[in-house]
Amino acid sequence: MDPINNGEEETSKKEISRCSIDVHKVAPPPQRSSFEKLKSRLKETFFPDDPLRQFKGQPSKRKWILAAQYAFPILQWGPNYSLSHFKSDVVSGLTIASLAIPQGISYAKLANLPPIVGLYSSFVPPLVYAVLGSSRDVAVGPVSIASLILGSMLSQQVSPAKDPLLFLQLGFSSTFFAGLTQASLGFLRLGFIIDYLSEATLVGFMAGAAIIVSLQQLKSLLGITHFTKQMGILPVLSSVFHRTTEVYLLSLFIFGPSFLLLFPVPHDCSMKRPKLFWVSAGMPLASVILSTIIVFALKAQNHGIDVVRILYMHLSSLVSLSVSFIYLYMQEGIAVGRTFAALKSYRVDGNKEMMAIGIMNIIGSSTSCYVTTGSFSRSAVNHNAGAKTAVSNVVMSVTVMVTLLLLMPLFRFTPNVVLGAIIVTAVLGLIDLPAARRIWRIDKFDFLVMLASFFGVIFVSVQLGLAIAVGMSIFRMLLQMTRPTTMVLGNIPGTNLYTNLHHYKDAVSVPGFLILSIQAPINFANANYLKERIMRWMADYEADHITHHHQLQGIKQHSTTSLHYVILDMSCVSALDTTGVTLFKDLKKALECKGVELVLVNPIGEVIEKLERAESEAAGSIILRADLVYLTTAEAVAQLSSAINLKMMM
Amino acid sequence: MDPINNGEEETSKKEISRCSIDVHKVAPPPQRSSFEKLKSRLKETFFPDDPLRQFKGQPSKRKWILAAQYAFPILQWGPNYSLSHFKSDVVSGLTIASLAIPQGISYAKLANLPPIVGLYSSFVPPLVYAVLGSSRDVAVGPVSIASLILGSMLSQQVSPAKDPLLFLQLGFSSTFFAGLTQASLGFLRLGFIIDYLSEATLVGFMAGAAIIVSLQQLKSLLGITHFTKQMGILPVLSSVFHRTTEVYLLSLFIFGPSFLLLFPVPHDCSMKRPKLFWVSAGMPLASVILSTIIVFALKAQNHGIDVVRILYMHLSSLVSLSVSFIYLYMQEGIAVGRTFAALKSYRVDGNKEMMAIGIMNIIGSSTSCYVTTGSFSRSAVNHNAGAKTAVSNVVMSVTVMVTLLLLMPLFRFTPNVVLGAIIVTAVLGLIDLPAARRIWRIDKFDFLVMLASFFGVIFVSVQLGLAIAVGMSIFRMLLQMTRPTTMVLGNIPGTNLYTNLHHYKDAVSVPGFLILSIQAPINFANANYLKERIMRWMADYEADHITHHHQLQGIKQHSTTSLHYVILDMSCVSALDTTGVTLFKDLKKALECKGVELVLVNPIGEVIEKLERAESEAAGSIILRADLVYLTTAEAVAQLSSAINLKMMM
Repeated sequence: MDPINNGEEETSKKEISRCSIDVHKVAPPPQRSSFEKLKSRLKETFFPDDPLRQFKGQPSKRKWILAAQYAFPILQWGPNYSLSHFKSDVVSGLTIASLAIPQGISYAKLANLPPIVGLYSSFVPPLVYAVLGSSRDVAVGPVSIASLILGSMLSQQVSPAKDPLLFLQLGFSSTFFAGLTQASLGFLRLGFIIDYLSEATLVGFMAGAAIIVSLQQLKSLLGITHFTKQMGILPVLSSVFHRTTEVYLLSLFIFGPSFLLLFPVPHDCSMKRPKLFWVSAGMPLASVILSTIIVFALKAQNHGIDVVRILYMHLSSLVSLSVSFIYLYMQEGIAVGRTFAALKSYRVDGNKEMMAIGIMNIIGSSTSCYVTTGSFSRSAVNHNAGAKTAVSNVVMSVTVMVTLLLLMPLFRFTPNVVLGAIIVTAVLGLIDLPAARRIWRIDKFDFLVMLASFFGVIFVSVQLGLAIAVGMSIFRMLLQMTRPTTMVLGNIPGTNLYTNLHHYKDAVSVPGFLILSIQAPINFANANYLKERIMRWMADYEADHITHHHQLQGIKQHSTTSLHYVILDMSCVSALDTTGVTLFKDLKKALECKGVELVLVNPIGEVIEKLERAESEAAGSIILRADLVYLTTAEAVAQLSSAINLKMMM
Repeated sequence: MDPINNGEEETSKKEISRCSIDVHKVAPPPQRSSFEKLKSRLKETFFPDDPLRQFKGQPSKRKWILAAQYAFPILQWGPNYSLSHFKSDVVSGLTIASLAIPQGISYAKLANLPPIVGLYSSFVPPLVYAVLGSSRDVAVGPVSIASLILGSMLSQQVSPAKDPLLFLQLGFSSTFFAGLTQASLGFLRLGFIIDYLSEATLVGFMAGAAIIVSLQQLKSLLGITHFTKQMGILPVLSSVFHRTTEVYLLSLFIFGPSFLLLFPVPHDCSMKRPKLFWVSAGMPLASVILSTIIVFALKAQNHGIDVVRILYMHLSSLVSLSVSFIYLYMQEGIAVGRTFAALKSYRVDGNKEMMAIGIMNIIGSSTSCYVTTGSFSRSAVNHNAGAKTAVSNVVMSVTVMVTLLLLMPLFRFTPNVVLGAIIVTAVLGLIDLPAARRIWRIDKFDFLVMLASFFGVIFVSVQLGLAIAVGMSIFRMLLQMTRPTTMVLGNIPGTNLYTNLHHYKDAVSVPGFLILSIQAPINFANANYLKERIMRWMADYEADHITHHHQLQGIKQHSTTSLHYVILDMSCVSALDTTGVTLFKDLKKALECKGVELVLVNPIGEVIEKLERAESEAAGSIILRADLVYLTTAEAVAQLSSAINLKMMM
């Protein structure tokens, strides 16, 4: 007996002695019919947040009230709405209104829609949301990304310059169908599909979109009259360099100050320094008014700065929307709601919220509004301005309406260049470099995904950029399934603990045992891999022990160190399909050839069930032999190593 | 203090007293550079079976020999090939030849190719495989499924009746590109894609295909002259009922006996009753010879049974092959290899095997052979006939060649009706009802997948049927990721064991603790769900304890039973992405609001690393606080419950 072995021997001995372990049987899973299982699985899939919890055990009358409140959250906070609430709601409402007006105009421009549509969109939807929405901080209205994508997607079909009317109609019908899709997804509790936009994808996408948008603004900033409507950096740049000679001093003269005015106020500053919310709130409006006055004074519109033109509306015609668009604009809305709900720690039912926003857009589309959702920047301002309830949205909408009635004529003089500046500052805030750095440090693959969506958006197209990024993320998930982790466990001497042998230096392998932990559900995608991998672990084991004997006494000596049992820790195998069951049969056969026994530790209910059923089918090799299934690795080792010692004596 | 609580109290007390647990620190993971990680991950993905293991630590000369042997397995068994080997190889070779000839002709017919192509295909490829193949039992040649799909796919483009020559060329080029694809997939170590054909999918598909094929054979069985070449049950049936008047007595008179001769020999009988291998081997040939003689005697070909017509070959032109085809025919080849390797317990490198079969087809296509692979039925016979090495393939190929030279003229008289009977009996063996029943009993969803591919193949098309089935399987995997299992753990009184509270009846929840085990990698797809689910578990906990207090003493009493710690058992969280990291930050924040601490148990190396990095980024909430990370749940509970008791005293 060589020292090292003795060491190991002792380990296992000590264990056996130390814990005169009373072995615990692996209980058979509680009986449940396939129907019950199906029911619970469906519940987990579609109602993970259990929205009906509050209804449980309530009198039917109360149930009706609760249902009404669930449908119309206004009934929850409405009754006990106080004056103090109202005060702070008015303040915040006016604040976001001062943001909503210039942004509304700008974003409409971004979508190649007449600016007044932007204002309408900050008027009707907020009212609807105030009734249906369950978030207290979200400020709804047009948002940059959605406007951008809508514009670029529609421009591919119709030229907003040539056929503005059809373009407008397309815009409204897109809004309608986006709303319809969203509402139905919410109703069908399929909201979770938006989770497939990973953080990395969004960061990359936003940055890419921001750059494209800013470049497109060069049009108004440089006063270029003929400009490409395409997304994609190449067409944009080309038409910039093609026309830079046209730069008008006047444009710069106006752009300079307004940009300087706006730039120190990135979109999320108001999140970081709440007290300063009025800055980000006031500035855009200020610059609009300022510049309007200047232009009015200079009558600059005669000197060639093209000014806002107003169009009138019509009813909508049918058009299908690309998934990526719906995806993104849903995503923003819900994300905003979740974020602020988390801040004030109240719950927002994602699917309910989707329905609210969806209905909001359906109604909006018929009142000449284009796509709206919860705006991140304005919601932040709203939150910091101390909004208490959705009433702040109402106040905003009223303010906007007043503006529409009284001040609209004045906006004729607002130069595009200022709107351009507003857009640029708004979207530049979407470039989140710290997040990019964090992603790089935390997860290299996510960083790749981020780059993919970034360059995809910049060089190819919004849709493709997203598709690639989402595809990569899903592919990685599949790969994790196809190549699950298998860890070799070792014992920490003098304890019942078994930990990853390659992570914990003080863990030692127990002679005669190969202890593996399988870290994923076993199914058709990984059954073959697992078999090969386990075989390889066994080969490694043999190799180690033989070579190490050679070194020690030059001869093969196979008594205690040779492999007797392969223990599979099944704690993490959360599911098993038919191919997975077959794996165990094959494995068992393969091990028997080598005179090694297969031991299972702590299999979950489902796994036990399926293996049992499989056995009742195929008479022959039994996988769940009572003496080869244990609740813990420690117990298995304790029991079986004594068995080994017996064998050795004979 | 109410009794129940006392009970629980004692539990946790006992625990603390019993195990004066020496707390083990969670070790930081061993330092590895991103490059090292990438390297090991790539290895796991592409070389899970570690084919280069044998090369390790060998002298360079030896390495060359090994490399040569790896490339050409013949060099392994060639040198020590004995006479006794040869004897048994000859026997088995002749046996499978007697199968290969009739099946070759029949399957070629199945692919709408001239029968001699079938014979060629049992002549050249076996020779190639004998040199390159690593399996000792596989008998290569045309197989029913591949022939069927090839035929149906090509018929959609060219009519074999109208333009037989072009059809032939398409056949060869398809073979060439199938071979090329397979060889390159093998070379790129991407063989694992065939694992995505789950057992359920295959069972369903095979059955569907078998039915279609058998129906198509009604043509020759009923002597129908004009027959649809389409797959799909409806066109087939229609043309059957349309022509049944044409049934010739003579056809039945021949079909009857030959079918009876063949039927008692289903394709896998030779697997079940090895001794009878000669039956399944001899019968087809027997019936061919018999019927040929009969027809020759009766000169029946004048009486209207259309007999085999022979065509001549040309070089191939380019065509692209549908994935499903490559998929299936690869799958069969590799599956066969693996099965028999398992039986004789020698290893077959799937990717290497793919390359072998791929090259075999590339060469084959240029020598007027169509797609070949390892045939399950013939390999079974080969195995039971006692084949020792690939020499049996050589023997077969020689026998086939001799047949080609001498007996081919005779085959002119072989009536299609017999070939039809051969095909039908061959494919009917593919309908595996026991498997279907097993799948139903083990996994209902898999059964759905099976039905999907079955009906997809029968009513729609081979490609679509497969696509649907594979899609369903993958969708389920994604769903498992999106809705991972979370188990509530409870303590088994008097032990350190923590098991699923809803599975083990004797487990009790520890007051003040909510112990959850998360059973999947945490990523963008499930981060949101997990947060909501954990919140819901907490709500459940609160609900339970409050109500149960109400019942007991009517008042809320929140000392020890109220929730203090949420313990997440991270043992099974095998990966974490950036969104996952964010989850922990949010969760921590959300819990702090409720005055609950978040405790992590046994996180794996990767998780620790990523959380640490995230913290070094975001100053603020620390997730990995030393006193809130433990190696085992028992230790965590022991430590923290004393902390709770302290709090209570104050």
